[in-house]
Amino acid sequence: MTHLNRLLAMLAIAVLAMAATFGTAEASERYGTQKAVYHINGTGGEESKVYLGALRNIQNHLNAVGAENMELRVVLHGNGVNLLGEALANETLQARVVELKGQGVVFNVCNNTLVGRDINPETDLFDVWEDDIVPSGVAELSYLQQQGYTYVKP
Amino acid sequence: MTHLNRLLAMLAIAVLAMAATFGTAEASERYGTQKAVYHINGTGGEESKVYLGALRNIQNHLNAVGAENMELRVVLHGNGVNLLGEALANETLQARVVELKGQGVVFNVCNNTLVGRDINPETDLFDVWEDDIVPSGVAELSYLQQQGYTYVKP
Amino acid sequence: MTHLNRLLAMLAIAVLAMAATFGTAEASERYGTQKAVYHINGTGGEESKVYLGALRNIQNHLNAVGAENMELRVVLHGNGVNLLGEALANETLQARVVELKGQGVVFNVCNNTLVGRDINPETDLFDVWEDDIVPSGVAELSYLQQQGYTYVKP
Repeated sequence: MTHLNRLLAMLAIAVLAMAATFGTAEASERYGTQKAVYHINGTGGEESKVYLGALRNIQNHLNAVGAENMELRVVLHGNGVNLLGEALANETLQARVVELKGQGVVFNVCNNTLVGRDINPETDLFDVWEDDIVPSGVAELSYLQQQGYTYVKP
Repeated sequence: MTHLNRLLAMLAIAVLAMAATFGTAEASERYGTQKAVYHINGTGGEESKVYLGALRNIQNHLNAVGAENMELRVVLHGNGVNLLGEALANETLQARVVELKGQGVVFNVCNNTLVGRDINPETDLFDVWEDDIVPSGVAELSYLQQQGYTYVKP
Repeated sequence: MTHLNRLLAMLAIAVLAMAATFGTAEASERYGTQKAVYHINGTGGEESKVYLGALRNIQNHLNAVGAENMELRVVLHGNGVNLLGEALANETLQARVVELKGQGVVFNVCNNTLVGRDINPETDLFDVWEDDIVPSGVAELSYLQQQGYTYVKP
C-alpha cells in the first residue's frame, strides 16, 4: 500500500464518518446496535462482481444501522480469501475495502487457507496485518456467534 | 391481485389451518415453538426452480413444527426480490406464496434493492404491502436474529 | 459397511483422538468450547469436490477448537443428502465421513427428503442409522440453534 493510498484511505474515512453522522437517525432507531459477521468463502466471478455485491450489502447494512452502532466482521476463508487477492489489482474492489475499513469493518483471514494454499498475506493479499489473521475461519464464525454476533451469508 | 385470487387465498388459508391442526402433534413435541428467518438473495433459475425449492423447505419446516408454533419470516434482497417478481407470472410460485402467507409467513422486501433497481413494489412484485418493506434486508437479518430468530439460508 | 471398514473406522478414531489431544492447546484457549451445526443442502459437483471441501472445513474447525471441546452436527437435506449417497462409491469421501464420525461429528439426514425422493437410507446412503434421521432438516437447523448451536453454511 503506497503512502498515497493510505492518505486516500484516511480521507475516505473522514468523509464516510461524516456521512454516517447525518441521515441514519431514523434507521438506527429501528435497528439499535448490532453485531454481525459476514461469511465469505466463494469465488468472486467475472470482474469480482460477486465480491462487489457482498461489499455493497455490507455498506447498505452500515448505512441502515449507522457505522457507529455496529461491530461488523468479514470472515474470509477458502476461495473467499481471493477477495483480498483480487483487491490488489481491481481498483474498485480495493476502494470498497478501504471505505469499509474506514467505517470500522474488520476483515479476518483464515490461517488454514493461507497455509493450505501457500498464500503470503503480505504480498498476495491487499492490506492484511497480523491481527487480521485468525487460526480458522470456520471456528471464528462460531466463536463470534457465541459472542453475540449475528450471521449473514451474502 | 384480483378478487378471485383473494378469495382463493382465503380458502387456502382455511384449508391449511385445518391441516396444521391435525397430524403435527408429534413433530411439534420435538421442536416446540420456533422463530426462523429465511435469507433469500439469489436468482430463481429456470422456471423459478430454486425459489420453489426454498418455499418447499419452508412448507416442510411449518409442517414439522406446526404453523401455530412458528414465527417465520422470509427476507428478500438483491436478486432474491425476483421471487415476488416471478410470482406475478408463474402461477405455481404465486400459489406457494399465497399458501405460506395463509399460514402466517411474512415476506419482507429490502427497500435498498427496490430503490437501487428501480422496482415499483405495487406493479412489479406480487402482493407487497407497505408493512412488508424493510429499510435494509441485511440489517433486518441481524435485527431478527437479535430478537431470537434462527437463521436458515436455503 | 463391511467388518474391515468398521475396523478401519475404529483405528481412525483412535489415531485422531490422539492427534486431537496434542497440539490444539493454543487454539482451544482462543475458542473455548463450541457447538456448531453445518448446513449442507447443495450438490457435490465433479468428484464430490464441494462435499470434500465442506468436510475439510469441518476437520479444520475440529482441529482449531479440539474435537473434545466441540459438539458438531451436519444437517443434510435436499441435494445435500447426496453426500452420503456419493460416499458409498467415493472412497475418499467415505474415509472423510468415517474420520469425522470418529471425532464425534453427527450426520443428520432429513426424513422429508428421504420420503420425497424415495431414498432408502439403508441401501442408498452410507452408514445411516435410525437415530441419524430427523423429521425435517430445516426444522432441525432452527431447533439446534435454539439449543445454542452456531450456524455455518459452508
